[in-house]
Order: sequence, then structure tokens, then C-alpha cells
Amino acid sequence: MTETAKPLPVSAADIDAAAKVVAPFAVRTPLLSFPVLDERVGAKVFLKPEMLQRTGSFKFRGAFNKLVSIPTEKRGGGVVAFSSGNHAQGVAAAAQILNMQATIVMPADSPLTKRERTKAYGAEVVLYDRDKEDREAIAGGIASKRGATLVRPYDDPFVIAGQGTAGREIAEDLTARGVVPDIVVAPASGGGLIAGVATAVKAKFPNAEVIVAEPQGYDDHALSLRAGHREAHPAAGRTICDALMAAMPGELTFSINSKLLAKGVSASDEEVGKAVAFAYRELKLVVEPGGAVGLAALLAGRIDAKGKNVVIVLSGGNVDADLFAKLVA
Amino acid sequence: MTETAKPLPVSAADIDAAAKVVAPFAVRTPLLSFPVLDERVGAKVFLKPEMLQRTGSFKFRGAFNKLVSIPTEKRGGGVVAFSSGNHAQGVAAAAQILNMQATIVMPADSPLTKRERTKAYGAEVVLYDRDKEDREAIAGGIASKRGATLVRPYDDPFVIAGQGTAGREIAEDLTARGVVPDIVVAPASGGGLIAGVATAVKAKFPNAEVIVAEPQGYDDHALSLRAGHREAHPAAGRTICDALMAAMPGELTFSINSKLLAKGVSASDEEVGKAVAFAYRELKLVVEPGGAVGLAALLAGRIDAKGKNVVIVLSGGNVDADLFAKLVA
Repeated sequence: MTETAKPLPVSAADIDAAAKVVAPFAVRTPLLSFPVLDERVGAKVFLKPEMLQRTGSFKFRGAFNKLVSIPTEKRGGGVVAFSSGNHAQGVAAAAQILNMQATIVMPADSPLTKRERTKAYGAEVVLYDRDKEDREAIAGGIASKRGATLVRPYDDPFVIAGQGTAGREIAEDLTARGVVPDIVVAPASGGGLIAGVATAVKAKFPNAEVIVAEPQGYDDHALSLRAGHREAHPAAGRTICDALMAAMPGELTFSINSKLLAKGVSASDEEVGKAVAFAYRELKLVVEPGGAVGLAALLAGRIDAKGKNVVIVLSGGNVDADLFAKLVA
Repeated sequence: MTETAKPLPVSAADIDAAAKVVAPFAVRTPLLSFPVLDERVGAKVFLKPEMLQRTGSFKFRGAFNKLVSIPTEKRGGGVVAFSSGNHAQGVAAAAQILNMQATIVMPADSPLTKRERTKAYGAEVVLYDRDKEDREAIAGGIASKRGATLVRPYDDPFVIAGQGTAGREIAEDLTARGVVPDIVVAPASGGGLIAGVATAVKAKFPNAEVIVAEPQGYDDHALSLRAGHREAHPAAGRTICDALMAAMPGELTFSINSKLLAKGVSASDEEVGKAVAFAYRELKLVVEPGGAVGLAALLAGRIDAKGKNVVIVLSGGNVDADLFAKLVA
């Protein structure tokens, strides 16, 4: 019985191409191991510390790859994006390097550090009310008024391919060490990072189990993977994982993730807070809550890691100092 | 005119040998670059993040190399060490791996996190009063009573060679990237780290300028380098750099450092605090005050870095959460 396989919207070759584009400007983050973590979970764990990336999260990779793809004649109109903060910084920093104007629509309750850092990269920040206003409509209005290109946070093949360069580096570094990964975990909001990482990793290691990590209650990817179609998560409130609050997987990203991911795991805000504190105390890394959700699931025993080679992507480190102090106290 | 050169007490070959001993247990820390730091100081900066090392500082390297050198028939007596906290953890962790008993003499005012972590590695901790008691006498008493081997924090060729493995990794990683370092900076208390790093780096890059970084007022290495003989620093109070309070360079370490180091630089507690905050905010790394003194000197403009390739060793990250919160606020 054969099936006519529709090609996925992003290929490993697209990620190879993105790697060439972003390499001169992105940080090639290392793959880190810690005896204290390996002993704690009884596995060989490799952390991909994307908080060490330019702008403090993986988002620069996708944003830069997307902005370079904008035709020269359209660059004068600048770019517009909506983001809770990390995509905002990624787009702003990429625009600054490419001498383009950037306008970012951010929720008024996004972390101060993310708003300030976005402005510091020269972007104009427009705040909106997360509960009452539609960020896509605001961004769309700015785009059409200014002739700016809308840079979507995840549902764009160039963005997904850019994020995939993190997965490509993981695969390269594991290969250099002669390690075959059993499990690869990355967080998801709209699913761009995990889609790119899964594409790159599975191209080299087809048997690796790629798992998406989400905050408890915000597990729309896990729900959608089980249902076989996109479903919204049930949560209505807030999570400390401010970066991971998208209501539903992206259309493009889910077309990839539904094919490549094994399943989803989740962690509570309390477990995430403990993971942030563990990373401070034992790993000496500053991880923001949303960036720590995979590590939190691992430490909470939600990943069947014993005796395996496990890769965890720590996706960002932009956390307000007062929240960080509270979590590590 | 020729001079009969007395060989230095630690050679690059000793460090090669130490690298073989520590490699299976120590973390091979990466060499990190950050666009935000390069842009800030107008140089190409490479950070050696030794807070990512086992126990959260470079000290594990020297301690493990030393403990392995203890003859089997003497291991039953265990080891004793005096330390403000990082050497304590290094010795305790090394002893735990080698199934040896460790007793550590620590100042009663050393950071809580360092005392707790030392105990967590299975060591017995004996507290003393920094102002009234003599830690060497206490440790010596324990050593003779129990038949334990005293593990000095810096004035020991095995300890210096072990710390030198950090410098050896720096030289290897720079070579792999085709980079020739102009300046290499590391902090010093007794001078074991900088002696080992200088030995390893200058073996590969004889023209590199190796600079020692110290807290303002605790600059006994800088004073001694200028005087041409060992001198105590004038400070009598406290610095937030709790790891860097030794009064005078070691005898062995100074015999190396006086030959290999170019000079000393220092940074005030305020500048160190700013460097800790910068590392939190921009680099997403947890650096303890003493570990940040080289970075502090760089950020304060005390190192002539413009246009150069500069390596800075961040030597540790064991800082109490309340002090850290205060510094990054």
C-alpha cells in the first residue's frame, strides 16, 4: 500500500541554505553537557543553549533568514512583526543589521526586559492589549499603510528553516562526537522551532524521537498531535512561560510537526520555576521560563530518558530580573 | 650574555599529562563569543566559561589532577584542604569520584551556597574565623592527626597543571578557529589558574600578553609583578570577590607568573557588580563576582583591547542567590 507523499514545506536542504545565510551573523551555540544533570536523570543529556544566541533566544535565526529573503525593492518599506518578545528582538536585531526599519507589535504585559531590548535594537514598539485587541489586525494595518513586510513568528518557511539551523548544529555536533540521539526535545508556542529542529535532526537521525514541550494547559501541540488536526489549548489565563502562549499550532508548522513529532510533554509553572532555579544553581545558565519547559519536563520525570542520549533545547534567556530573583531564591 | 634558565616548576608537558587525567571527568568547556560584547568593546572577545565546569568553577581540574597523583597507599587517609569555597568543592567532588574522604576548612563567612555544595559532595566541613584563626594550622593539624594529604589551593605543581588544562583547551579551540590571541586575561587569588593558563597558552602562542585580573586593593599579583618579588596586598576589609582574597601570590605560582605574565589589571567591587549584571542580562551566564573580575576590567576600559583578539576566563559561578539578585536588579 503506497501513499502519495506531499513534500513538506521545509526541507533539510532549505535549512542547509539558511545555515549559509545566518552563519556570518548568528552565534554557533555549543552543545553542553553537565555531569550533575546526567547523574540526576540517569541519562546522557546534551543541552542546546539558545539563550547564548544573538538577542538571547533562537528567534534571531529565523528572523534573519526571513529578512534576507525579502526582495531588495521591498526592503525600503521595512518590516512589521507581532511578538511577545523574543521574535520581536530577533526581527529588530536582524533589521538593524540589514539597515531596515522594524515596527513590532507587543502585548502591553510582555516582560519589560523584552520591550526594552527590542527598542534597543532600534525598532519602534507598538503596545496592544492581549485580551481585547487583535495583534494580527494591528500588524496587518501597519504593513498595508507603510508597505512593510509582515514577518510571521512561525508560519513562514524561511522562519522555520532559520530556526532549523539550531537543529542542524545539534546534528553536526552529535555526529562529531559519535553520539546518536534517542530523544530530542524543544519547546513550542506556534511550533516553528520544533518544526525546524525536527526537520534537521530527522534528516540525519531518522530514528530520533522528537518531542514537543509545552506549559501545562497550553499544550495545543500535544492535543493536536493526538487529534490528528490543529486544536486550540483550553487555557485562558497566564503562564510564567510568556513566550509559549500561542493558542494553536501554526498551519505550516503543524503540517511538518504532525509528520515528524512523536508526542508532546508538558510541565507546570511550578516545575518550570524549579527548572529555572536548577539551571541557575547547577548549570550557571540564565534560562527564561518558556525556554526551560523541556528541561522542566525532564527533571519532573515526564520524559523516559533513563540510559538514553537526550537533547534538550533551552530556547531563550530573556527574563525580568525580579521574576528571576523570585524563582532562584 | 646568557642566563642559566632554571626550568619552571610546571611545563606544557605537565599540562598535557594533566589533560589526559582530568578529561574523563572534567567538562570540556567551550569558548564563547557574543556579538553584543564584541560591539561593546570593539574587539573580538572569547570567553572561557569555567562556571560550566563540574562544581561550578575551574577548581575541579587542579583538585582532581592532584588527588589522582596521591599514591594508592596514602589514599586511605583521605584529603584535607582549606578554601573559601571553590577549591573546597573541587576537592570534595574529586574525592567523591575517587572514593576518598575529604575534610575542608572553610571561613565561617564564606557564601552559604559554597558551604552547602561542598557538603553535598560528601565532604566534612570545618568552619573557622577568618580574622582570628589560621586555616593552614587547622588544616595541618587535621592532616597530621588523620594521615590525610593536604591539598593546597594553588602552590602545588599538580594543582597548577590541572588548572592549566583550561588554558590548553583555549589554545586548542583558538587554533581550530585560526585565531591568534593578543591578550589572555584570568583572575588570581593565589595565582594557580593564571600560572597554568599562561604556561599552556604561551607554549602555543608565545607572543600572547597574559594579564592577571584582581579586585581593587587585593592586587598583590600586580604589586608583586611590578616589584619583582612577592608582596602582600594592602587590603584589610572584604571584597565581593570572596574567591580572590589571598593576601599574597604563591611561591610556586609566582615563580611562573613572574616569568610569563605581562601585568595586572584590577576592577572595583562596583565594576565587578556591573560585570555580573552584564553577564546575566546580555550573556545569560551566571558569574560569581570573583569570576567576573577580568570581564569587569575589560568593560571598564582597563584593558587595551580595541581591534584585538582577547580571551577572558570567567572562573566560576557559585554565588548566593540573594547577592546575585541584588547585583542584577
